[in-house]
Amino acid sequence: MKIREATVADFEQIWPIFHPIAAAGETYAYPRETDREQGRKLWMELPRKTFVVEEDGEILATYYIKSNQSGPGSHVCNCGYMVAPSARGRGLATAMCEHSQQVAVELGFKAMQFNFVATTNEGAVRLWQRLGFETVGRLPKAFNHPTEGLVDALVMYKWLSG
Amino acid sequence: MKIREATVADFEQIWPIFHPIAAAGETYAYPRETDREQGRKLWMELPRKTFVVEEDGEILATYYIKSNQSGPGSHVCNCGYMVAPSARGRGLATAMCEHSQQVAVELGFKAMQFNFVATTNEGAVRLWQRLGFETVGRLPKAFNHPTEGLVDALVMYKWLSG
Repeated sequence: MKIREATVADFEQIWPIFHPIAAAGETYAYPRETDREQGRKLWMELPRKTFVVEEDGEILATYYIKSNQSGPGSHVCNCGYMVAPSARGRGLATAMCEHSQQVAVELGFKAMQFNFVATTNEGAVRLWQRLGFETVGRLPKAFNHPTEGLVDALVMYKWLSG
Repeated sequence: MKIREATVADFEQIWPIFHPIAAAGETYAYPRETDREQGRKLWMELPRKTFVVEEDGEILATYYIKSNQSGPGSHVCNCGYMVAPSARGRGLATAMCEHSQQVAVELGFKAMQFNFVATTNEGAVRLWQRLGFETVGRLPKAFNHPTEGLVDALVMYKWLSG
């Protein structure tokens, strides 16, 4: 298993991971009807870099890193992580998050921010807390969950250097 | 004085308001070197709608409204407001913010969020508080102010309906 930068060709295997997660509408602020070309832009083109977790030629998980804001906010990065259902429970989200923090520091970022963690996504909230992220904000009823309705979203933040 | 939707031609008068504010780097998360074409995209093209405050054919101030997040976050809007230096102290920011809340409700938005209010921007913080916005998050050292250095940024939020 290795984590490496994604190539253009990898999207063939990234889309089957991305699409059901976006279409479910439970965790990411992407339109549920996001199509393949929009998904490619969002995950591969707009971010600063995209990575994949690969094992025996198979892509198990993927993440992106980008500036969270421009200009006076460009020292803080944002990441998104997705794991294929078949690869869950193997610690890949943890591995990717730790990898991304190192990449962030290498790219000169000083902090990492998650803008919109649905409180219903309890596994993610616990994981980010365990990895040192602090809940610095709570957005009331900001996340429209397909079955839970309007739920709060958290802003989570970690300072990465000195 | 009236508030009306901006036309394409209005950018001629919007740019001289936008440019010094972006270039100062003290309040907006825009690159300080944002050029005219990028500014036009950011203020006129990417938002859902853009408005101007006009008096005797002169544009004194401007604001945009857009979804703050896509998909499960698309019921929360975000706005940005800019006032020409010559028109400050006349309550135009208040007038625009109140106007934008009404537009937001008309467009079907349920809440309004400001993502990145520098704590150094004390006038804005006080104003949004007075207009009913609550500080729901504080991002440590997330705003790189040109003279104050790394300062905290606030996330401010107001529920608009029921």
